[in-house]
Amino acid sequence: MLSRSLSNERLVRVQWGDCDPAGIVFYPRYFEWIDASTILLFEKATGLTKIRMMEKYGGAGLALLEARAVFKVASQYGDDITIATRVSEFRRTVFLVEHRVTRADGALALEAFETRLWTVRDPATGRIKSGDMPAEIIAAFGGTGSAPSPLGSA
Amino acid sequence: MLSRSLSNERLVRVQWGDCDPAGIVFYPRYFEWIDASTILLFEKATGLTKIRMMEKYGGAGLALLEARAVFKVASQYGDDITIATRVSEFRRTVFLVEHRVTRADGALALEAFETRLWTVRDPATGRIKSGDMPAEIIAAFGGTGSAPSPLGSA
Amino acid sequence: MLSRSLSNERLVRVQWGDCDPAGIVFYPRYFEWIDASTILLFEKATGLTKIRMMEKYGGAGLALLEARAVFKVASQYGDDITIATRVSEFRRTVFLVEHRVTRADGALALEAFETRLWTVRDPATGRIKSGDMPAEIIAAFGGTGSAPSPLGSA
Amino acid sequence: MLSRSLSNERLVRVQWGDCDPAGIVFYPRYFEWIDASTILLFEKATGLTKIRMMEKYGGAGLALLEARAVFKVASQYGDDITIATRVSEFRRTVFLVEHRVTRADGALALEAFETRLWTVRDPATGRIKSGDMPAEIIAAFGGTGSAPSPLGSA
Repeated sequence: MLSRSLSNERLVRVQWGDCDPAGIVFYPRYFEWIDASTILLFEKATGLTKIRMMEKYGGAGLALLEARAVFKVASQYGDDITIATRVSEFRRTVFLVEHRVTRADGALALEAFETRLWTVRDPATGRIKSGDMPAEIIAAFGGTGSAPSPLGSA
Repeated sequence: MLSRSLSNERLVRVQWGDCDPAGIVFYPRYFEWIDASTILLFEKATGLTKIRMMEKYGGAGLALLEARAVFKVASQYGDDITIATRVSEFRRTVFLVEHRVTRADGALALEAFETRLWTVRDPATGRIKSGDMPAEIIAAFGGTGSAPSPLGSA
Repeated sequence: MLSRSLSNERLVRVQWGDCDPAGIVFYPRYFEWIDASTILLFEKATGLTKIRMMEKYGGAGLALLEARAVFKVASQYGDDITIATRVSEFRRTVFLVEHRVTRADGALALEAFETRLWTVRDPATGRIKSGDMPAEIIAAFGGTGSAPSPLGSA
Repeated sequence: MLSRSLSNERLVRVQWGDCDPAGIVFYPRYFEWIDASTILLFEKATGLTKIRMMEKYGGAGLALLEARAVFKVASQYGDDITIATRVSEFRRTVFLVEHRVTRADGALALEAFETRLWTVRDPATGRIKSGDMPAEIIAAFGGTGSAPSPLGSA
């Protein structure tokens, strides 16, 4: 199901120490910003910090299954970049996050994609396992969370 | 062409500061280690630091086009992880790098894949553009760099 | 000479990935923010990015001679902290930077102190050496740069 | 009391991504390495990871009170630097850590100093407070922990 969904935009100023000897952003930094952007989006949706959200819903984390970034143009020290983040799809236990990073001149710097798993702690064993995304959280993103997907994605 | 290829293994001790409040490696750290692993592999192949290699071959960098990681099991503070890195394919200007990260208990922690572009500086304009991978470097990896790919990858 | 000086305040949201397994900011992160705060203060004073400032004044960098931080209370994921930065003293080639980091509840999280050297590139040898702080930059901070220090600091 | 003390040396290869656009180590990286070096020294002394050490001794952490570094010469990408770490003094609840970072050419790159506090969790309130350094740990460092300091430091 494609969510008609809540998105989050934030501005990041590229700092001197974010850049490598070639003068461009050292790419793991983008993943730092992307991880924070995903969390900020969930905070916006739920009105709770990640820790409070986990407590409220019995969650154990937003486990990362896969991360991917496709780089278009480099960003440099002093650039102001905008990171726009949305959940592109909620499945039962998995959700997909998309990030578009653009420079102030409008150029698309990169796109990034995360596949994440809602995890809970098994009360019996204490182990972490996948759990159903709470319907309330999906609803907070503007999706219904209950409609069958026409594409059959699960 | 799949290279019969040089690989590099290195051991990384996961430090306290590499981990997040959940006690597991903050995932951008893996990309830091992976980036360094790619460079170390090229240093092993050429016997040159990245900067010297660029000077010798007129290169301007190993531009990253895409990075992807598939996470299997988490690593924690105190774990010793091994990063095994090889170039899985050399195309004309592009090459693919694969990394397997395993824990000391043998568990596969993650696999990562980078698509990188050999870049050179255009002498006329000073701009960076893609360039043919030097045959000498491909040879140093144990590939021939000239055999046509049976799969037609370019 | 104590400058009546320009200061800069900026807000930093502590992100999940800034924190360690104890749930508090991993301390090198503070130095990342502090380094950026010093640069932002110079950018505010000169209206130039660090790179442009270096070009204009023939500078080669704000070399760090000493960094020190005194930690008072920890900051945690989700905290909004304010970093207030000023130059406490300009000497001939050296300047001292002070940073006060406070939490949203008003608590002083830490104070940090940097001793930095204005460096220039020797045209004859190409080597980097200390240089006199440009009077224009000192003036931009609100100091005169010419008054003898009553304390005789040089 | 100056300990006749256990020390730890470790080699760090400066990676591309550790360096800034000036081509030298971005200084917060040194503090990352230094923090890990302190932990590794305690692990060497006790034969336990930090987490196990905390469990065994009822400790809650090695809280940082102050960190200071004095920079001598820069390190660059490709440099192999050695970090030598020792505890210079154990007081009752506080201990001082010294780090000397040298380059392969023997040049002293920097010296760093940490003041840390042994903390425990108050069983009554659950709050973290300072605690006496366990004599067993001090002994493992080669000090007695009981001799009065001739300099009267406490």
